[in-house]
This record gives sequence, structure tokens and C-alpha cells, in this order.
Amino acid sequence: MKRMAKKHVLRPVEHVQITGVLTVDQLVKKMAGSGAFGAGRLSEAVDVFTEMVKDREMTKILGLAGAMVPAGMKQLIVKLIRDEWINVVVTTGGNLVHDLVEAFGGRHYKGTCFADDTKLRADKINRIYDVFLPDSYFVLFEKKIHKIFDDIKKRELSIRELLTEIGKRLKDSNSILKAAADCDVPIFCPALSDSIIGLQLWLYTQEKKLKVDAFRDMHELIEICYAAKRAGGIFLGGGVPKNFILQAMLVTPKGGYDCAIQITMDRAETGGLSGATLEEAISWGKIKARAKRVTVIGDVTLIFPIIVAAVNERLSIVH
Amino acid sequence: MKRMAKKHVLRPVEHVQITGVLTVDQLVKKMAGSGAFGAGRLSEAVDVFTEMVKDREMTKILGLAGAMVPAGMKQLIVKLIRDEWINVVVTTGGNLVHDLVEAFGGRHYKGTCFADDTKLRADKINRIYDVFLPDSYFVLFEKKIHKIFDDIKKRELSIRELLTEIGKRLKDSNSILKAAADCDVPIFCPALSDSIIGLQLWLYTQEKKLKVDAFRDMHELIEICYAAKRAGGIFLGGGVPKNFILQAMLVTPKGGYDCAIQITMDRAETGGLSGATLEEAISWGKIKARAKRVTVIGDVTLIFPIIVAAVNERLSIVH
Amino acid sequence: MKRMAKKHVLRPVEHVQITGVLTVDQLVKKMAGSGAFGAGRLSEAVDVFTEMVKDREMTKILGLAGAMVPAGMKQLIVKLIRDEWINVVVTTGGNLVHDLVEAFGGRHYKGTCFADDTKLRADKINRIYDVFLPDSYFVLFEKKIHKIFDDIKKRELSIRELLTEIGKRLKDSNSILKAAADCDVPIFCPALSDSIIGLQLWLYTQEKKLKVDAFRDMHELIEICYAAKRAGGIFLGGGVPKNFILQAMLVTPKGGYDCAIQITMDRAETGGLSGATLEEAISWGKIKARAKRVTVIGDVTLIFPIIVAAVNERLSIVH
Amino acid sequence: MKRMAKKHVLRPVEHVQITGVLTVDQLVKKMAGSGAFGAGRLSEAVDVFTEMVKDREMTKILGLAGAMVPAGMKQLIVKLIRDEWINVVVTTGGNLVHDLVEAFGGRHYKGTCFADDTKLRADKINRIYDVFLPDSYFVLFEKKIHKIFDDIKKRELSIRELLTEIGKRLKDSNSILKAAADCDVPIFCPALSDSIIGLQLWLYTQEKKLKVDAFRDMHELIEICYAAKRAGGIFLGGGVPKNFILQAMLVTPKGGYDCAIQITMDRAETGGLSGATLEEAISWGKIKARAKRVTVIGDVTLIFPIIVAAVNERLSIVH
Repeated sequence: MKRMAKKHVLRPVEHVQITGVLTVDQLVKKMAGSGAFGAGRLSEAVDVFTEMVKDREMTKILGLAGAMVPAGMKQLIVKLIRDEWINVVVTTGGNLVHDLVEAFGGRHYKGTCFADDTKLRADKINRIYDVFLPDSYFVLFEKKIHKIFDDIKKRELSIRELLTEIGKRLKDSNSILKAAADCDVPIFCPALSDSIIGLQLWLYTQEKKLKVDAFRDMHELIEICYAAKRAGGIFLGGGVPKNFILQAMLVTPKGGYDCAIQITMDRAETGGLSGATLEEAISWGKIKARAKRVTVIGDVTLIFPIIVAAVNERLSIVH
Repeated sequence: MKRMAKKHVLRPVEHVQITGVLTVDQLVKKMAGSGAFGAGRLSEAVDVFTEMVKDREMTKILGLAGAMVPAGMKQLIVKLIRDEWINVVVTTGGNLVHDLVEAFGGRHYKGTCFADDTKLRADKINRIYDVFLPDSYFVLFEKKIHKIFDDIKKRELSIRELLTEIGKRLKDSNSILKAAADCDVPIFCPALSDSIIGLQLWLYTQEKKLKVDAFRDMHELIEICYAAKRAGGIFLGGGVPKNFILQAMLVTPKGGYDCAIQITMDRAETGGLSGATLEEAISWGKIKARAKRVTVIGDVTLIFPIIVAAVNERLSIVH
Repeated sequence: MKRMAKKHVLRPVEHVQITGVLTVDQLVKKMAGSGAFGAGRLSEAVDVFTEMVKDREMTKILGLAGAMVPAGMKQLIVKLIRDEWINVVVTTGGNLVHDLVEAFGGRHYKGTCFADDTKLRADKINRIYDVFLPDSYFVLFEKKIHKIFDDIKKRELSIRELLTEIGKRLKDSNSILKAAADCDVPIFCPALSDSIIGLQLWLYTQEKKLKVDAFRDMHELIEICYAAKRAGGIFLGGGVPKNFILQAMLVTPKGGYDCAIQITMDRAETGGLSGATLEEAISWGKIKARAKRVTVIGDVTLIFPIIVAAVNERLSIVH
Repeated sequence: MKRMAKKHVLRPVEHVQITGVLTVDQLVKKMAGSGAFGAGRLSEAVDVFTEMVKDREMTKILGLAGAMVPAGMKQLIVKLIRDEWINVVVTTGGNLVHDLVEAFGGRHYKGTCFADDTKLRADKINRIYDVFLPDSYFVLFEKKIHKIFDDIKKRELSIRELLTEIGKRLKDSNSILKAAADCDVPIFCPALSDSIIGLQLWLYTQEKKLKVDAFRDMHELIEICYAAKRAGGIFLGGGVPKNFILQAMLVTPKGGYDCAIQITMDRAETGGLSGATLEEAISWGKIKARAKRVTVIGDVTLIFPIIVAAVNERLSIVH
């Protein structure tokens, strides 16, 4: 044992003990005591994210894949933006489409994953796992987004600029796009063309002029990375957002992100970037070898609210 | 939309909103508002488990696979036993071995999953993902368990009886086996021979007489199922515990469990029972068609503490 | 049993029997006899893909996520293109970058997933799971791709056109881009900016003019869908390619794809599109309710070569 | 590059190329050329298994979890036994129950995983993912197994002996139990009580005497390990079989298995033994540090037939 203690960093696993009413962070701290398996990684993620949020000089970039908005996670992102927990968002088009559906007056509905999809089709209801979204909201979406397109003065923009312009014209303070516009948080969406926004943009430009340049955004994100004193990435799922965030750092001489948190169900063994370990990113120079980093394997919709609640608690109590 | 509302159960997805300090259940209730994806399933699991715990006439059986004790989850199980949240435990041998390691004075240590296993072997340290356990504790284990075997009067027992006898002789009130013995909660371990306890038992019986019958336990569990007014299963992982709990009900004319909660990373598509859906169990008559049931896909060590904390909070506030 | 036979489609599971030397399709047909679990789905995928390939009037679109080229799957894609098994490719930028790395004279190397990433960084080697790629090939890449950019006459192109222009200028007949250019197979890459090609393009345009429009491609793909007598999708992994292919069909009045094959490790329960079932796509009108469709859960690099070999065998024997 | 070549074992990834009709092993060898990701691991598994089969002095132990018999994999196991590719089987009870269902004249049927389980229950059909099994075969099972129990002379046996006695009394040469009895291959089933065989045994012993000792088997398996010149484990899924095989070696002074192949969908990060890496087993002394070992992540029903076919081909051609 002594020999083990000397050679290995050693602290006994403390068992999670639950009594009375616990706040979220009190529970997370009990998990930290355990330190093992998923519980340990969750508590580490809270530590790292708290440190990131507290570091006012760190540029924090959030990667957003999956279907966070239909899942009811929109206001977590809005909070992160409004409270300056993050400074940049990189997302799939899907999350923005669903954000706009709601900003335009639509709603997502709690359905079931056991639905008969043929019947749903007949009823003009689109299913996202156990969430339902009626076709009618896409009709509304088309009308409203074209109005916004009309209203934009500058007729040549980057994707980021377009998204800011859209955000400025929204009234729903719970919208991600609106919050980002309010707070000067740039939203990047490299694959915007792969979304209903992109589709409507293309339809719009069949008759009117509105040029959107998909390549200028990269420049802007790279400059943000260049300018960052320190930089951290929070990856909710993988996909294009994860790659875009990592790639932007790659071109700078910084040597990689200083902090990284990854929450995903994707695993490394198929070789895709979505499931790649944060360690692999070190070999590329995307993440520093000494970076604080933690991966939590699990469903983002279940894990991220816990992390945000725990960090919020730590910050609430400190002040 | 009206048509959809009529034909489908419909309630809008409410977004999880986090402000100030939240208790665990306050957060879970916000997830319930969302109702979608993993967050929705987690909140449902809390609802179902609360209902189960409150139902004093329901026999609640806990299935325990995986490595819950090295993960620091031992006292959650102890709490469930001591607070009468569950009435029966079915477990792998592994969880009991690790429970005894600690009851006998050993500890598990927080290590790392990136360790060099060849070096660990040289240092006589066993790795369980990111937890370390020195060989020396198994030496201690051998000495202590043989002493207990010596001390048992009845020389022919069922596995369940053996485990009760062991539990009675422990002093560590944080031990699962001790708590179960204290509270008359039977612990079944159908595959005890597949564990270091089984191994030591066999070594012991090379010189001394101690007959353990592995088949009588089934009888006892079936009788518990027969006698149950209502019955519920909580499946932490799959494996033998899940099957044993479901199978015991199969032989009764009850028509299946009334409630079921499953937390697992296993999926259905390989066809194994561990990942089988609770719906599949309906076809067998193991779970009632109208049973309240919910599966949460995820790491038990991360998810179960949240569920227990939320249920505990609901019960603490009620009383 | 008779009652079961009447109400349910019923055929006994035949056990896979292996004797002597089997061709790939002989094995797949034995799996078809079983019909169960993953083996059954694999055999169905071979049936559906064979039917698709044989249907000369079906437009077949391949979605390519993950890291197929580093995995050694490049020539499978080239074969699909050259043999007219597919008519359109939608891919992540990553696969094209790695295709170009090799077309420009670089290689990927068999490494190990247990490597020390900090040391790899010091040695200027990038790791992709268990594949190594030296930095030096990216230097080569930069030089060669800028030369190609210089050589392109048309200075305003869609992403698809740019990729065709690049393909035309390659000499490596084993390149995906070259094969596609040779065979008039359009390659779409909606998130090209999220790749080293996009990065180099941006660097290039800092000094020279080369305008690439990311939104025109969608138009072209939608027109392909419109024009298709029948259409089929083959989804290797999820991500942007899967969504882009499905979305393009959504806008047409076709009612969805007639055939769909999906091979992926992603699952439905987190709600993201990558893991969404093909059934879910029916609710959106992206896939027809009566479409032949099959999902194989597994590693594409392991499963897709089997499918291609089996289909090839069926076609070789027919002719 | 030279520096990389010196420090790292380096061979270029060769792309899988498919032309004409390929035998299974020809395809596997092409995957070996690639060497990357899942394709590489599959080809390694074929190499290691071939070597194991050829080594007549190696004791080869097969661990069998999941639902291999309903999946149509029974005759693969029978082949392994009859051709002396393996010398010992450790299995869950489930696989033996399904083996006996068929040996007694029952069948499994190809159904669908989208079935309505409530209706299936009404029709007395049990579902195993996409396989159906009517209740009636369990009635037949009861009758036949009790007859066999009656017929066994020795009234006190180990589980292994009981299974041999059952196997001897079967006529179906395609039965695993029959093949094992024919070939003197011991079958261990540590959790037999967790199966319908165990259930029927218990029912039987309510009226008649038949004592089965669950702990003697361990002794026998340990002795097999002791006696083995070299030893290899093939783990199809995890669960009790994996643990039992590894644990038996633990008690010997051998230092672990010399070869190990693992095929599973379970992953390491939840800390359970089912998903534990083979590397972790080195720290315990269950597998030698220098052991040839390979893990293939995937569905056993899809992957194992390929491995068996490829090994069979190598052996067929050699002779």
C-alpha cells in the first residue's frame, strides 16, 4: 500500500451519501468525493466549467450539436449567453431552426417515441424522437423568415452576420439568436445550408438578392482564437460544431485550447471526429497537453442541465 | 394543430430554466417540464420511483449489476435498504465482494483509466476502470471471510442464507450486506460462484464442510413474488440480476411487475436481455402491459444518485 | 402455434452453418436464413442495396460521415462511383481532405489508439483513432491545393463545382474526387468551410479572388431529387450528409426516398438526427412509408466492405 | 517522416479494394491491409483466433453471453465444439434453454422488433428483440426436461455434470449440449439457477431428489486452467461467462491467458466488467501483458460468423 501510495496519486473513493434535501451542487460534490466512473467525470466537468466561467479573460466557445431546442434546452443556452458564461456559439443549423420556430410563435410538443410515423405523416406532424412538431409551424417559419430577409439592409453578409441580423429582429428574449444579438455573442453555423434556414435563404434568393458567404466566418472565428488570452471549448455533442471549433484553433500558433469539456454519446472506436477523445486532439495541437479536459459520456439533455445548475449554484453562493 | 391536439396527447415542451440555487428535485421538475429525450425520462424515473417508495404495500426488488461499490454507490444502496425503499436485492457477486473488501477494512482508490496495466500488475494493483484496488485487500478478505465461514453454525444453507449470515457478522454499518441483515432484506446472488466469495467458499469447503445450495434462492424469490400485493423492479444495469428478477415473476400467475425502472447503457439491438426494452418484457408476462415503466439510457453512477436525491427530497418535504 | 402463424409472418430462424470456403455473399445468405438481430439486418441491407444498384432508374445518393478515408475505405467509394452504384455523394469535408492528402502524394499510417498524444504532437504526427498522419502532408496539401485554385478559370463557383474542378485536376485514379469528376457524379459538401479545404480556400482568397457559394448546391441537389424517377439514400454515419440528403427530398413533392440504408453507431435516444431511426424520417416525409429501409447498428468500416463485397458478388454472378 | 518511421511502427493504410467474387477471408485480408478502426480489429481477431485454433496445446475457453441461439448462431458454437476449435464453454443459462427448446422440437421464429408486445402476450408469444418464441414450447420443454431429470442415475452432480447428462440424452446433433457431451467439452453455467433450466430443476426437486452443486464447477474450471499448457479466452459478450473465465485463471500461478478475443457492444466507461478492456484484465493478472488480444466493438451475431468463416477458410485451404 505504501508503495502504491508513493507511485500513484491515491485517495480513497468516498461513497455518495444522500440525506435530506440536497442542492444540485451539494450532490455533485458528493459525486466528486467518489470520483469514480461517470459520477467522477460529471463532478470534474462542473469544476472545469466553473473555472472557465470565472476566468473573465478566457474566451469560451460553445459547440452545439444534436437537437437541444426541441429537447427544452434552449434557455440553458440563452442563460450561458446572457450571463457571459460563453462568448461564442458554433451550432448546427437545426438548433437555430428550432429556435426560430419558437421565436416565430410555434411550439414543440411532448409526444412519444412509440408513435406510428405513417399516421404522424398523415396528420402532418414531424417527429424528433419523442417530440412532435406540426408542419404548420414551418409554414409560419417561411413567412416570417422571408420578412426578415427583406428587412436586412446589407445585401452581402457572412453567415455570422446574417444570424446576427436575424437575431436583432426577434422579439422573443428566450431565443438563442436574440440573446446572442443582444449580447454581441457571435453565432457561427458552418453548415447553415444544411438547414431549413439555408433552404429558405436559397428560395428567397431565387427572386431577390441576398448573398451569404459561408467562408468568411472561419476567418472571424480564427481571429477570435488569435485574440484570445486563453480559450476553452464546451462540446455538446460532436459533428460540425466540434470540428469547426477545434480547427479554428489549429491555425493559430496558440498550441490549442486551455480547457475542454465534452458531453457526448459518441465513442472513439469508429474513428469519427464526433466520438474522438480530447486526448486525440492533443496530437493535432487543437488542445494543449496540459489543458484541463473532461469527457462525460451520456445524454446531453440529461447531463448539461445538472452541470449548469451546479455551476450556477457555485457562482450564486460566491457572490 | 387542433386536429393534432385531438388525436395526440399534447403539451408544449417547456424549456429548462436555471436561476439561483436549485435543489436536485427542483431541477428534475424543470426537466419534467421539458419532458423530452433523456431529461424527460429521468424525470419520469423520479416520479415512478417516488410512487414505488410511497407504496408501502408494493414489494420493491432492486437489481444490481456493474461495479456500484468501487464507484462509490454503496451508501445509496444501504440507504435504500435502511429506509425501506426496497425490500429485496438481487446482485452480481462482484458488488458483494467489493462491499466486503471495505467492510473488512480495505478501501478502493481513485486512480485513472489511462494507467499502464502492466505496471499496475507489477505493483499488485487491480484496476476497475479508473478505480484502483490493491491485491493486499484480497489477502485480508480471504482471512476474514474464512473466519466468518467458521463461525456459521448451520452447515447447509441457501446462498441467500449464507449472505445473511455473513451480513450479521459485519460491524460496518455502511455495508450493504450488514444493512440487509439488519433490516431483514434478503440478498440474492444467483451467480455467487462467479465471484471471489464463491471462490473462497470453494477453497474453504476443500477442508471443511459448508454446503451452499444455489437453487433454493429461486424458490424464496418466487414466493416473495407470489406474496406481493404489488411488485416493482428497479434495474441498475442488466445481467443476471435483471433476468433473475424478471424470471421469478414469470412463474407466478400475477401477470408481471406493476412498476419497472431501468437504467443502463445496454441497448436492445444485439438481442441480449441486458439491453432488452421493458416493453419486450410485456410479451413474456414479466411486466404488466399497464405497468408504469421507464428506461433511462446512461451511466448508473451518474444517474442513480440524482434519482435517489430527488426522491429523498420529495419524501423529506412531504413528512 | 397455428394461431401465431396466422396472425404473424412466421418463418423459423435457420442457424448459420459454416463449412469449407464461403464467399462473402454465401455467408450473408446464411445470415439471411437466420434473419435475427444484427445478422438479419446485415443481410437485409445487402438485399436492399443490390436492388438499388440494379435499378438503373433510381437516383442513388451516398452520405459519407466519419473518417472513411483514413480507415482505408476510399476505394470502396471510388468503386461505387465508377461502377455507377451511386449517382451523388454528400460528404463531410474531412473525407475529402483525406482523399486529397493521398491524391497529393501523402499517406495515412497504421498507428495505435494507445499512443501518447503529447509525444505524437512533439513528433508532429496527428492521430485519428489508430491511424497516424504526419503534419508534413498538410504542408504538401497547402502547396498543391493553392496551385489547383490558381488553375481554375471560373472564379465564382458553387461548392459542388469547386469540387468537380479539383477532381478534374487530380491524377490519382483512386481518388474519390477524381473518380467523381471522371464519372460526372456530383459531390456535395455543405460544410466545406469546416475542413482544411475550406481553410485553405479562405487563406487563398485573402490574396486572390475565388468566390464559392455554399447555398447553390442545395438547389442542385433538390433538382436532382425532383428529377429522380425513384430515389434511394445510403447513409454511412449521420451528421450533415444524412440531414442534407433527407432535407433535399423534403422540399420535393415526391413524398420521400424509396429506399434507405443506414449504417451507424449512433442511436435514437439522445434525439439527434444522426441516430434518428429511418422510421422517424417517415413522419417528416423524407422517406416513404412503404420504402424499403434497413438500419445496421455498427462500425461502418467493418460492415460496409461486407455489404459491398456481397452486392458485387451478386452482380458478378448475374452477368 | 523518417523520424516518425523510426520512432513509430509504421505501415501505410492500404485501401480495401473489392473486385469480382471474394471469399470471406479474402475480404478479411483486405481489411487487414487497411488495419484501421473496426476493419483492422476484425482482421486481427481472425489472425488471433486462427493461431489459437491451430495451437493444439492451447486450452481454448469460449464465453457465451447474449442470446446467441435465438439469433441463429447455435451451429457456429456446435462447429467450434465438434471441430475442436474450443475445449470449454462457459455460458449463460439462457443460451442453453434456447438450445434445449430446439433440441426438444421447438423453433424460434423470425418476427419483428416493432411488434405490439401487449398483443404478443395475448397470443402467448414471447419476443426476443426481433425473434418470436411461443409459450407452447416451454410447456414441451418442461415435459422433456423432467423426463431427462428422471433418467439421470447419479442424484448429486455439479452443474457441469448435470449439463453433460442432459447433453447425452439429446438426439439433435445440432444441439450445443449434445455436441459438448459427444466431444467431452465441459459446459459451465455458473448462473444456471437464473434460467428456465434452473427453474425446472427447482420444480423437479420439490418432489424428487436431484442435488446440483453450483460451486464444484469452479474447481473443475480452475483445474483446467492449471493443467493448460497455454490458455486462450474468446468472449462473445460479457456478463457472468466473461468474469468466470477470467476469475478461474486468476487463482492459478499462470499469470493470465495467453490469448484473448472479445466481441461486444459494451464499453469501458461505466466501470462494469462486461465492457472492461482486455488491458484492464492485465492489471488483475487475468491476461498476460504480452498476450495477443483484440477487442471488436460490435454485434456478435454479425461479427462472429465472419470470423468463424474466415478462420475456417484458412484452415480448409491449409489442409
